[in-house]
Amino acid sequence: MRRFAADRAKRLLFRSLFSSAATPSAPFSSSPAAAAAAAIDSAARSVTVDTINPKVLKCEYAVRGEIVSHAQRLQLELQTKPGSHPFEEILYCNIGNPQSLGQQPVTFFREVLALCDHPSLLDQSETHALFSADAVERAWKILDAIPGRATGAYSHSQGIKGLRDAIAAGIAERDGFPANPDDIFLTDGASPAVHTMMQLLIRSEKDGILCPIPQYPLYSASIALHGGSLVPYYLDESTGWGLEISELKKQLEDARSKGITVRALVVINPGNPTGQVLAEENQKDIVDFCKNEGLVLLADEVYQENIYVEDKKFNSFKKIARSMGYDDAHLSLVSFQSVSKGYYGECGKRGGYMEVTGFNAEVREQIYKVASVNLCSNISGQILASLVMNPPKVGDESYESFDAEKSGILSSLARRAKALEDAFNSLEGVTCNKAEGAMYLFPCLHLPSKAIEAAKAVDAVPDAFYARRLLDATGIVVVPGSGFGQVPGTWHIRCTILPQEDKIPDIISRLGAFHESFMEEFCD
Amino acid sequence: MRRFAADRAKRLLFRSLFSSAATPSAPFSSSPAAAAAAAIDSAARSVTVDTINPKVLKCEYAVRGEIVSHAQRLQLELQTKPGSHPFEEILYCNIGNPQSLGQQPVTFFREVLALCDHPSLLDQSETHALFSADAVERAWKILDAIPGRATGAYSHSQGIKGLRDAIAAGIAERDGFPANPDDIFLTDGASPAVHTMMQLLIRSEKDGILCPIPQYPLYSASIALHGGSLVPYYLDESTGWGLEISELKKQLEDARSKGITVRALVVINPGNPTGQVLAEENQKDIVDFCKNEGLVLLADEVYQENIYVEDKKFNSFKKIARSMGYDDAHLSLVSFQSVSKGYYGECGKRGGYMEVTGFNAEVREQIYKVASVNLCSNISGQILASLVMNPPKVGDESYESFDAEKSGILSSLARRAKALEDAFNSLEGVTCNKAEGAMYLFPCLHLPSKAIEAAKAVDAVPDAFYARRLLDATGIVVVPGSGFGQVPGTWHIRCTILPQEDKIPDIISRLGAFHESFMEEFCD
Repeated sequence: MRRFAADRAKRLLFRSLFSSAATPSAPFSSSPAAAAAAAIDSAARSVTVDTINPKVLKCEYAVRGEIVSHAQRLQLELQTKPGSHPFEEILYCNIGNPQSLGQQPVTFFREVLALCDHPSLLDQSETHALFSADAVERAWKILDAIPGRATGAYSHSQGIKGLRDAIAAGIAERDGFPANPDDIFLTDGASPAVHTMMQLLIRSEKDGILCPIPQYPLYSASIALHGGSLVPYYLDESTGWGLEISELKKQLEDARSKGITVRALVVINPGNPTGQVLAEENQKDIVDFCKNEGLVLLADEVYQENIYVEDKKFNSFKKIARSMGYDDAHLSLVSFQSVSKGYYGECGKRGGYMEVTGFNAEVREQIYKVASVNLCSNISGQILASLVMNPPKVGDESYESFDAEKSGILSSLARRAKALEDAFNSLEGVTCNKAEGAMYLFPCLHLPSKAIEAAKAVDAVPDAFYARRLLDATGIVVVPGSGFGQVPGTWHIRCTILPQEDKIPDIISRLGAFHESFMEEFCD
Repeated sequence: MRRFAADRAKRLLFRSLFSSAATPSAPFSSSPAAAAAAAIDSAARSVTVDTINPKVLKCEYAVRGEIVSHAQRLQLELQTKPGSHPFEEILYCNIGNPQSLGQQPVTFFREVLALCDHPSLLDQSETHALFSADAVERAWKILDAIPGRATGAYSHSQGIKGLRDAIAAGIAERDGFPANPDDIFLTDGASPAVHTMMQLLIRSEKDGILCPIPQYPLYSASIALHGGSLVPYYLDESTGWGLEISELKKQLEDARSKGITVRALVVINPGNPTGQVLAEENQKDIVDFCKNEGLVLLADEVYQENIYVEDKKFNSFKKIARSMGYDDAHLSLVSFQSVSKGYYGECGKRGGYMEVTGFNAEVREQIYKVASVNLCSNISGQILASLVMNPPKVGDESYESFDAEKSGILSSLARRAKALEDAFNSLEGVTCNKAEGAMYLFPCLHLPSKAIEAAKAVDAVPDAFYARRLLDATGIVVVPGSGFGQVPGTWHIRCTILPQEDKIPDIISRLGAFHESFMEEFCD
C-alpha cells in the first residue's frame, strides 16, 4: 500500500504543476460530468485509484500526457475567447501525426481505399473519370484476394492471406531475402503488435526488456502494463545517439546480477525520439549480441522510409541477420511496421504489421491464439499496409504523380529537419544532434540552475517546466525529455519536424524569442 | 511448474484429437516455415511455451479454435483437390461474421466511408451521379467535425469529438436520457474496450468477474490474460436462458467466501451464445444488485439491433438505471457497442465504443491514459460508429432504400433463426431455445452414452467430437458448447443464423442427415 500511496502523491504533485484551478482531470475537467464524477468520491464506490490495477497506475505515456491536455484547454480558450493568448493557434509538435498538421494523404492510396470501401463504384462508368486506372486495377486485385470480396467481414486472425502475400513480396523486394506470408500478423498500427509481444514474453517483474534510453514511451508503458521490468541501455548523445554493444552488455549483466531474466532487446531504427540511423556494422553486432545472449530482437522499424541524409540507408534487421547467414534457427526476431509514418503518415487508419520469425511452432500458435481473441485488425488498415509495401511502380499510370507526392513530402521533411536542427543549435545553451531519420529532434537543454530551482519550487521536472513555459508563450507543444528517459541530470525536449514548411520560419522565430526571454529570466 | 506441465499435456491431448498427421500447428502447418520452426526446438532458444507468460497459455478462444483451423485445412483441400470431401464448400457458422456469408453492406454507410476516405471526390461533379445527396452531406458534416478534415490523422484518444457528440445524441434518442460525449471511448470493435476494463479492474487472481455461463469466450479469455478469476453464474436453460438474481447472489457469496473480491458483473443482452433478450423487470433487479453490491456493471449490448420477436425489445442498462432514478453517483456502468453486429454487420471495419458512466474523475483519467497509449481507434471505424448510431432519417434521400436494406436484413435473420431453431428441435435428442435476439442458436445435444465414450476414447470433449464429425461430414462449422461453458454433463453447440436464406434448406437437410447417421452409429 505504501508504494501506491507514494505513486498517488507523485501524480497529485505532478498534476498540481499543471492545474491552474481545482479541476482534477484534463480530459473531463470542463464537462458537467466531471462535477458529477467528482461528487462520486464521497459515495461508497468500489472503484477508486486505490483499488484499480496498480500496473495501470504505474504506466506513463508522456506523448499524450499532461502537457497535451493543457494544450487542449488552451485551444478551447482560443476558440471561445479569441485573443486570450499571445498566439493564434496551437502547434502540436508533440506527436508524429503528419496529417494533423496539413500533410496531404497520398492520392493513390486513398483512391484504392475508397474503391474497396464502396466496391459498387467499380461497376459505374463515372468512376473512370474520378479514379486512376491502376487504382481501379489494384482495387479489383485486392477485392479478388478477399473471400467473397467482403471488405466488411472479419478476416483471418493474422490478416487477409492475399494481403499478407503482397506484404511478404514487398519485404522480399526491400531486403533481397524471402519473406513468408505466414510470418506476417496484421495489426491496428504497430502499438498493439508491441503489446502482443510484451504480453507473450513478460511473466512477472523478474522478466526484463532491454530498451533504449531515450525511448518512445510505448515501450515503457507496455512493459509497465504487463508487469515487467524495463532494463535501460543508454544511447550516447555525444556520438549522435550511438548504440554501443559494451553498454548493452553492461546493462544485461547488471540486470542479470539483480535476478532479472532479460528476454528481449528493443531497438528503434531510425530512432525515436533520437533520429539516428544505425550503421550496418552496428546492426550486425546487435544481431550477434541477441543471438549469443538468447534475446528476442524486437525491431521497431516504423520509420524505415524516413531517412534524410545521403550517407545513411535503412537496413531491416531481418536483412542483416539473413546476410550473416542466420535463419529462424539462430535468432528470434520481430519487425514492427506501420502505415502511420513514412511519407504516407496515415496515422488514423491504424494499419501495421509485425513480421515474426525464429519462434517455434508452439509459441507461434500462442501468438495466433492471442491475435484470434481480437478477431482481426481493421481491413482498411490491412489494405493500406499492403499498399505501402507495394506502391505504384514505374510504368503504372499513377507512378509519376505518386512519386512526385512521395518525394515532395520526404524532401520537405528533410529541409524542415535541417532548419529546426539549425534553429535549436543557434539557441543559447542548446545542442541538437542531427535528425538522420524519423520525425523528431531531441535537443539537449543546458538549463540555468535558477530555472531548475524555479521548476523544483513548483514541483515540476525542469524540462516539463520549460515545455510548459514554451507552450504558454508560443502555443508550440513539445514533449519533455523526461517522458522518454534521459541521462540523469540532463534535460531535453522532443519536437516533431512536422509543421508545414511555410510555418517553420515563424516557429523558429517564436522559439528563439521565447528561449531568449527564458534564459534572460533565469540567467545565473 | 506442475500446473504448466498439466496445461501443456492438455493442449497436446486436445490437439491430438484434431491432428490427422504430424502437423503441429494449424495456421502454420502447411508452410515451409513450419518445418523450419519445428527444427528450432532443438536449438538453444529462450522462448518456448514453458517460458512464455502462463496467462497467455491459459487463455482459450473456441470461436477461432482448433475446429476452425481444421475447417481452414479442409477448405484448402477442397481448392487443391475438388471432390476430396463430401461437400463443396465450408459453411462458417462459427462466428458472427455476416458479410463473410454474403450479407451486403448498407449502401449509405459505405458511401459516406468512401467519401471520407477520399475527400477530393467531394469536389468532382461526377460524384453526384455516384453518391446519394445525403451521403455527400453527411460526409461534409463529418469532415467538418475533424480538425483540418484530416481523416488520416490520429484523433483525440477517445475518438473525434464531433463523432462522439453524434453518438451521444444517438444514445440520448434511443434511451430518452441524456448522454455525455466525454463518456464515450471509441475503440477498434468492442473487444479492445472489454480488455481495457478488465485491465483496469483486475489486480490479481483474487479479483473476480461475474460472467454468465454460457458466455462469449472473449470474457473468459480476457480475464485469463489479465490474471483474474472468472466467477460463473449459470443461465437457466429451462426458462429460456433466464438470468436469476438468486443465482447471482449465490455465486457472489460463494466467491467471497473463497476470498475473491468480485469487481464486476458481465451481462450480455441480447445473449451470446444464448440469444435471450432480458425483460425490463429483470434488468431493474440486475441494476439494483450491482448497486447494492458495489459491482461495476459491464453491459455487452452489441446485439441491441438484433431482436426477432414481437414481445421483446431492447432496453439499454443505462436507460433502465436512469429510469430508476440512479445516476453516476449510484452505479458504475459500462455499455459496449460495436459496428460488427446489428443489421450493419461491419465486422471488418473494427468500429465500436464504450460508454463509461459512474466512475470518479481520477479513475476516468486512468482509462483515458490507457486509451492514449494506443493513440486512437481507426477513423473509418469511428465514422461508422457515428453512422450506425445516427442512420438516415425519414425525409433523407437515402431513407427509403436504407430502410429497405435494414428491414430486409433483419426480417431475413428472424426467418433464418426460426427455421434453424425448428430444424434443431426436430432432431432426435436435441432441444433448442428460441433465438429472441443476437445471431446464434445454442441447442442442447442429449448425446448417447456410446458417443460420449467414443469421444473419450480419442481424448475429445463430447460436443467437440460431435462438431468435428459434423464438419467432416457436411462442411458446416459450429463451435462446441464447451468453448462457452455449460452446466457440467450437458452438451451444446453454437451455430450462427447467418448463412444466406437460400442456403438454409440445404443446411437443414445436411444437418438432419448427419445427425440421424450420428445417432444411429452411437445409439445406446
